[in-house]
Parts: sequence; C-alpha cells; structure tokens
Amino acid sequence: MASEATGKSPRRAEILRVAAELFASHGYHATGVKLLSDTVKIGRGGLYYHIGSKERILYEISKSQVDALLAVSAPIAASGIDPLDKLKFLTQELIQSIVANRAEWVVFFREFSALGEEHRRDVLASRDAYEALWASTFAEGYERGQSREVSVTMLKSILGMFNYSYLWLRADGSLSPREIADDMCSIILKGVWR
Amino acid sequence: MASEATGKSPRRAEILRVAAELFASHGYHATGVKLLSDTVKIGRGGLYYHIGSKERILYEISKSQVDALLAVSAPIAASGIDPLDKLKFLTQELIQSIVANRAEWVVFFREFSALGEEHRRDVLASRDAYEALWASTFAEGYERGQSREVSVTMLKSILGMFNYSYLWLRADGSLSPREIADDMCSIILKGVWR
Repeated sequence: MASEATGKSPRRAEILRVAAELFASHGYHATGVKLLSDTVKIGRGGLYYHIGSKERILYEISKSQVDALLAVSAPIAASGIDPLDKLKFLTQELIQSIVANRAEWVVFFREFSALGEEHRRDVLASRDAYEALWASTFAEGYERGQSREVSVTMLKSILGMFNYSYLWLRADGSLSPREIADDMCSIILKGVWR
Repeated sequence: MASEATGKSPRRAEILRVAAELFASHGYHATGVKLLSDTVKIGRGGLYYHIGSKERILYEISKSQVDALLAVSAPIAASGIDPLDKLKFLTQELIQSIVANRAEWVVFFREFSALGEEHRRDVLASRDAYEALWASTFAEGYERGQSREVSVTMLKSILGMFNYSYLWLRADGSLSPREIADDMCSIILKGVWR
C-alpha cells in the first residue's frame, strides 16, 4: 500500500468522488482502472499512489460514507433530547446523506459483495455501530413508554425504508430532503392506517 | 435469438435458477458464460439455444420474478375484500416471494442497471404495474376513510421497507414469512410511536 493511501488530500477526495460516479453508472466490475485514471486525468501510478487498488477505492467509498453518517448521528443519539426528536434528526441526517451522496450510496448498497473479506467486516462494523444508534433510540422511547417495543425485524424494516430510497430519491426532486424525511418519519410515528 | 428462447422448459427454468445463484454470489459481471455453462453442465451452444445471451438470462430472471409477483398480487388488489386485508395479503405475497427466491431478487435489485435499454423498460413496466396495485389499495383505504392519504414518497418508502428486506431476510430465520409480513405490516398500520 502506498504511504499516501490512508491520508486525506483534496486529490484523493476527488478520485473517490469520480470513482463513485463511474461505479454507480457503469458498475464496479465494468469500470476499468484505465477509464478511472483517464477520467480523473491521472496515471495508473498516481492512482495507486493516492489510493491503491480498485478494491481499495471501493472500500474507501463505502467506509467513508458510513463513517461520515455515523459521525453526525452518534452525537444525536448520545444527546439528552427527547427520543422522538432523536428519531427525527437521525432520519433527516440519513436522507440528507443519501441525497447529497447518491452515487456513493448506490455503490455501497450495490457493490458491497465485491469487497474483500477484511474490508467487508470493517464496513459492517461501522454499519452495525450506526444501526445501534437507532436501536438505542427506540429502546429509550420504549422505556419511556413513548413507543412500542421495536423488534429486530421492525428495526431492519424501518432502516430499509430509508436505505432503499437511494433508488428513487433525486437531489432535484420537488421535495426537500427535510420534507422527505418528515414524510418517512410520519410512517414510523403513526403508520398510515387509522 | 434461438427459437426455444421464449419457451418454458424445465431445463430452461433450471438454467435460470443456477444463473441467479451465480449472479447473486459472484455478481453478474464477474460470472462468465463458461462458469455458467460448466455449472449447469451444458455447452455454450445449449445455453444459447435454451435462453440466449447472458444479458437475456439477466432479463429473464428479473422479469419472471416481477411477473410472478404481479400474477399472485393483481387478483388480491382487484378483489372485493377490505383494503386493509388487501394490504396484509399483498405484504405476505411479497415477503413470501423474497424469502423463496432470494437469489433472484438480489440479482434484480443489484444488477438492474446491467440490463439493456429495451429490457430495462420492459421490467420497469411490470414493476410499475405492481406498484400501481399498492397505490390503488391505499387510494381505496383513503376513500373509505380508513387510511391517511399516501404520497408517492410514502408509497416508495413503504415498498422500500419490504424490498430492502432481500438484504437481511433468511429462509432459515426464526420467524416465518407470515410473521415477518405481520411485523412489517404493523408499522404501516400504526407506526411504532404512541
């Protein structure tokens, strides 16, 4: 691994952004290193110097998305605000992230299985830490008598409702991320059936 | 296109099943025609005779899943039963389908973008017809004063909740498809917050 590979340079961020767009539109396997290095106007040597292998790029894209979401969400879950407000803020951050980084989330969800074993475990650990924020928020709501007990199936279903939105959410849609988050949250809050 | 390509033979169904498993575990692009023909123990000529190109196989897998789901779901939506019961039966059929044909759904969701333009449009048309069954069920519930008005965002979110389950549902899990469907449906019905 090149020594630069774990650092944070603007060039590096740009390569990851372009790679995410290419992987999202052509698919990870169908995107060759040549297309990638041509698109970011860098030689294969430079690409390797900045990040490393193609699989490493996939890993960086996936890991950085989940970690960024975790970084903004953990303080919400850890705060002393009402669990219902936590739920609303967690939803807003998630939808905001999906809208702002759609290509990265497409790649994360679609190409996860192309990650090597070690990288896969590492990304899953971040994903589990993120899901735990939701679980603790629902647990808190339940302890306070504000919510029903939320089973693992229900938790996965609720997160699925949000996560799946990478397939249909558009940054240029008529609703703002905030409005979409509120719409989705309302399903958790009261369902749709009277 | 080989003349057999549109027929329904047991050999053909077997090829599609094996292809779905291979595409689901290795990815569509990474699964070569050689691996496929070796696994189903058929020559490339036989493979072509029975189905056609690799992209055609991807199309058949995707299309047949959505069409099978549509075939069992359309009569539910068209029936005279209470819309709430429609909702429950639609959910049960969807979860049952995902549990029973997990590889096919993985392929459908993950490899959709690898379809050619014409095939993509064709599969989307079936998918839209399926979503319309849900939309009409919610519209009926709203007309009868049983449900809130369900926006496009909410409909997509609800279907996302179910669809996303292909990532975590297991046929050998501790809950039956029926129990999972009931758990998920309860979120639509009353949400989780009091």
